[in-house]
Amino acid sequence: MKNSILILLTVLFLSCNSNNNTNEMIEIKNNISDPLSSWSEGPSKKAIIDFVTKTTKEGSPDFIPAADRIACFDNDGTLWSEQPVVQLAFVLDQIKAKASDHPEWKTEQPFKAILEGDVKAFTEGGKESVIKILEVTHTGMTSEEFNQSVKDWIATAKHPKTGMRYAEMIYKPMLELLNYLRANGYKTFIVSGGGIDFMRVFAEEIYGIPSYQVVGSSGKIKYEVNEGKPSIKKMAELNFIDDKEGKPEGIHQHIGKRPVFTAGNSDGDYAMLEYTISGSGPRFGMIIHHTDAEREFEYVKPMVGSKLERGLKDAAKFNWLVIDMKKDWKEIF
Amino acid sequence: MKNSILILLTVLFLSCNSNNNTNEMIEIKNNISDPLSSWSEGPSKKAIIDFVTKTTKEGSPDFIPAADRIACFDNDGTLWSEQPVVQLAFVLDQIKAKASDHPEWKTEQPFKAILEGDVKAFTEGGKESVIKILEVTHTGMTSEEFNQSVKDWIATAKHPKTGMRYAEMIYKPMLELLNYLRANGYKTFIVSGGGIDFMRVFAEEIYGIPSYQVVGSSGKIKYEVNEGKPSIKKMAELNFIDDKEGKPEGIHQHIGKRPVFTAGNSDGDYAMLEYTISGSGPRFGMIIHHTDAEREFEYVKPMVGSKLERGLKDAAKFNWLVIDMKKDWKEIF
Repeated sequence: MKNSILILLTVLFLSCNSNNNTNEMIEIKNNISDPLSSWSEGPSKKAIIDFVTKTTKEGSPDFIPAADRIACFDNDGTLWSEQPVVQLAFVLDQIKAKASDHPEWKTEQPFKAILEGDVKAFTEGGKESVIKILEVTHTGMTSEEFNQSVKDWIATAKHPKTGMRYAEMIYKPMLELLNYLRANGYKTFIVSGGGIDFMRVFAEEIYGIPSYQVVGSSGKIKYEVNEGKPSIKKMAELNFIDDKEGKPEGIHQHIGKRPVFTAGNSDGDYAMLEYTISGSGPRFGMIIHHTDAEREFEYVKPMVGSKLERGLKDAAKFNWLVIDMKKDWKEIF
Repeated sequence: MKNSILILLTVLFLSCNSNNNTNEMIEIKNNISDPLSSWSEGPSKKAIIDFVTKTTKEGSPDFIPAADRIACFDNDGTLWSEQPVVQLAFVLDQIKAKASDHPEWKTEQPFKAILEGDVKAFTEGGKESVIKILEVTHTGMTSEEFNQSVKDWIATAKHPKTGMRYAEMIYKPMLELLNYLRANGYKTFIVSGGGIDFMRVFAEEIYGIPSYQVVGSSGKIKYEVNEGKPSIKKMAELNFIDDKEGKPEGIHQHIGKRPVFTAGNSDGDYAMLEYTISGSGPRFGMIIHHTDAEREFEYVKPMVGSKLERGLKDAAKFNWLVIDMKKDWKEIF
């Protein structure tokens, strides 16, 4: 069932937003002599270090001024695990949590299908079903109310298989990479198909990425003043889908510069990788390849939301570094 | 004529974007003991210092964590002079510069009207005329091409009255304020009705504000790959108007947090001031009041683009600090 909803959600993702990030920055206790200690020694790790070294060394022909050190990261499957997609787990849990206030859902689709785990009935509802569930979980509330619902959920929700909190299922090597880049004057951004408001609730706490450095899909919003109290109301209308060609477009509108470093894990990231590496001067494209069935997941038959075909096919041509999770990462979480 | 175009442009502003900011951060040689040395001693300066002091002092009941220290500034009339609106001057100069390649403009409206300075004929063309001139100056090109045209122009274009470069007509007291806030852990953002792509070309160089901390009006864009060369194409369609209620909405979509400090100079900033100060905890709202006919401009009969009526009327009620440029600023530029 997850997959079916995912297919639709990937296309339709409405979105959401955060006000309550904590201020704590992420500090990983890196081995001081090795900021990428979870990475296996080898060409992948070397390629990263070589790039950062040559682009930050004054006088180097490949030197990139600090203001242009823009690094973009997809989120699902690139910075944290995406099986299941976390925002999808949130949606399903919200529906279940709200069900007791909505006795009519016992007979009303698509809620009945979700509550009964009836994939067939849900998928028969098509896009309309997805919009209905996003409406009740992501819209018709203020941004503060939405943020609180995500904050409450992410604090406790656990992965069905690993029993870990979703917020703990972030890739340690990627967290080290974010820190390593930032320590070298790079600004790190999330550029994800996921909901911008959803991600902003936890991006600062778990990745050290502030809300204004998160680019994602979004729904329309409306500034309202009710009884003298101004707020941002989340509307049930799509604003922007930050996927495929939407990624370089989202980068342009939000960041306003072409990145020099980009990491993704699916063909949804192809356009942003292509946009990144086609700029002049040194550029770095990275693809996270899910190859580790034991410690994480092996994407044998790629899921629709995470299809990686064009990316792998063209990686050599564009000189994108394909990270083999099994081989390149000593630790995963 | 400027006013007439301004009226239409204010409503319609299409927008634009930057890739070529310099990395130099703004450094004002402040008196070390007085980071706000261009501000007259008095209650306005004291209010600013008191706010920054109490919100950044650990243990203070008004302490604001660094991650929430979001400060937003309108641009035209708040950070730099807006008579004429600089982006409008750019548009007119672009039309004149392109005229030799377009002999047909000698007889074709609205170009004929602009080239001849015929206000009446131009305004008769209405919105359609504005869209036509924005089309040829802001769209149908890649973002890089647009950025270059702005960069070339802003490097030399001068104010018709003062003879100063527009980029020099920024308010020294506000630049000191930006630096003072940043030195105290605040993140400074531009939130302007002006074109986001236009402002990003120079915001880093003249204000020390990076491209991703600029929020503005925008046109639609499209990611295109032509002959293997990816670029962002600027389209002749409006995407977002960052004015009035659009300002808190733009803040939400781009920044994702409610600001704690906001400065503006017109009723176009009212909603963002109201949104800012209605959050919980300490908040600061500031209105720049143009009162200095001698050193800058006195807005006796407010221009349409800069109307300030509701803001002044409600300033006391909301505890917004009204800056009297003549009295509060020792120096202006």
